[in-house]
Amino acid sequence: MNMTAVTPELVDAAYAALGSGDPAQVARYWHEDMRWCVPGNHQLAGWYEGRDAFLGFMERVGKLSGGSFSMERVAVLTGGDYSADVTHNVGRRAGATGAASPYDSLDIDVVHVLRWSDGRVVEGRGAIFGDGTTRFNQFWSQLDAGGARISG
Amino acid sequence: MNMTAVTPELVDAAYAALGSGDPAQVARYWHEDMRWCVPGNHQLAGWYEGRDAFLGFMERVGKLSGGSFSMERVAVLTGGDYSADVTHNVGRRAGATGAASPYDSLDIDVVHVLRWSDGRVVEGRGAIFGDGTTRFNQFWSQLDAGGARISG
Amino acid sequence: MNMTAVTPELVDAAYAALGSGDPAQVARYWHEDMRWCVPGNHQLAGWYEGRDAFLGFMERVGKLSGGSFSMERVAVLTGGDYSADVTHNVGRRAGATGAASPYDSLDIDVVHVLRWSDGRVVEGRGAIFGDGTTRFNQFWSQLDAGGARISG
Amino acid sequence: MNMTAVTPELVDAAYAALGSGDPAQVARYWHEDMRWCVPGNHQLAGWYEGRDAFLGFMERVGKLSGGSFSMERVAVLTGGDYSADVTHNVGRRAGATGAASPYDSLDIDVVHVLRWSDGRVVEGRGAIFGDGTTRFNQFWSQLDAGGARISG
Repeated sequence: MNMTAVTPELVDAAYAALGSGDPAQVARYWHEDMRWCVPGNHQLAGWYEGRDAFLGFMERVGKLSGGSFSMERVAVLTGGDYSADVTHNVGRRAGATGAASPYDSLDIDVVHVLRWSDGRVVEGRGAIFGDGTTRFNQFWSQLDAGGARISG
Repeated sequence: MNMTAVTPELVDAAYAALGSGDPAQVARYWHEDMRWCVPGNHQLAGWYEGRDAFLGFMERVGKLSGGSFSMERVAVLTGGDYSADVTHNVGRRAGATGAASPYDSLDIDVVHVLRWSDGRVVEGRGAIFGDGTTRFNQFWSQLDAGGARISG
Repeated sequence: MNMTAVTPELVDAAYAALGSGDPAQVARYWHEDMRWCVPGNHQLAGWYEGRDAFLGFMERVGKLSGGSFSMERVAVLTGGDYSADVTHNVGRRAGATGAASPYDSLDIDVVHVLRWSDGRVVEGRGAIFGDGTTRFNQFWSQLDAGGARISG
Repeated sequence: MNMTAVTPELVDAAYAALGSGDPAQVARYWHEDMRWCVPGNHQLAGWYEGRDAFLGFMERVGKLSGGSFSMERVAVLTGGDYSADVTHNVGRRAGATGAASPYDSLDIDVVHVLRWSDGRVVEGRGAIFGDGTTRFNQFWSQLDAGGARISG
């Protein structure tokens, strides 16, 4: 049984802990055995098994986007063992210099659905609204707009 | 100001009304000026403006899937003016006879995020977990597994 | 046995006939029972069975692109019963007004491989270089860059 | 000026050299500064600059498919400085054990268009017929049918 209610405040605290980068804070809200699924079929897509793998994914997002990747919170929802946060995500590929293209710039609306157990996230999955998954696949592809291969 | 709280019971009632097909029930929970966005870039994707357009979309889903399309509710979440329902959707293309292929059979996990005003849905958007958007694009394409064009 | 050799001149003549719109000229080079496969999984994709269906496809390309769709020939190849023509295709969606986006503007490199019998095309298939198929799917989707549905 | 005519025999010899793995044979038909473009937007897609990069790509195809990737020649065409070879490509992902899925098995029709200079390939580009590019993106994604991430 889930003794800690999943509330918007808990969701906020978990993301704040994640943003802090403080391992103790992260461990408080994100279970060691958590798993996370990134939508699409690009190099970052699929299930990350374990908190370390998830944190490695987050780090790679930062690196590939030159630290430009940001998520603006639009809404937080809860229900039973679940939470959902709707965000507006933007980013620019590290090193991109040319005009905006779906390979260089990202602007999508996303929802993350999290499952909790005793106050910690045990599973999370992202999903993208509209045709954003196509653009997500382009953005995280190892291609620039001209088809050059970029090392990831 | 939103006078009617968005609760799981309200979400259930709205989907039950939609399933009933009773116009009065539908109108009670789904605003005439509502809009709905179907994810992906296939023939059914994009924004449907107005309840009639949304209902037309639902009807087309039923027709194209020979009535096989079904959504199993996994979780319902609420928060402020929003609700989210996580579902497991399966369907089979009307007239499909061959072996299972992504063009004939659909099996995806989905979340719908709804925005409410005074007890009625004013906006809804679907999003698909994992690589389900690719399979959604294949399933609703006007192609069978061999590339034959199927009239929609 | 194929009595008429497939030459670059024959390929040129066939495309010129197609461009002329003169039914007698078209019939001279394009077999009544020909089939044609458009790559991708958008509304125009898949096999067109019969010359009439193929011509209907061509007409729809012209209509959906407001007559802007054009193919610049880069190379013509032949071998046995086959020809291939490499083209640079550009187009703009009919009615597109906003800034360039993959949903409004197309710029791809393409190859068409044709199979001939007795001086007439009996089968043709297109294929797209680089990541152009993604952009082809976006361009022929019934979506604009904002996700609005456009009647096809 | 191109002193060596591009003939089907030359195309055959170039692919045979490639298949032999003998560096001297490879160097005879494939220019050191050649480039090659793999279609789609998956981990192997895009331009490979230089023969070494191209050979590295070929090696990776073999490794990721457990040596199962094979190309059956259907037709060879030539014209000016160009050749095109139409092939039927099949493969199975290394380590795949489950039922057939687009993530585990590949079966596509492909055309490679090569540009030659003085008897050696200086540029090559692949393109895929039908909706094969979608399946190519799935096959080379780092995902299995269940969304597990596979190290490439």
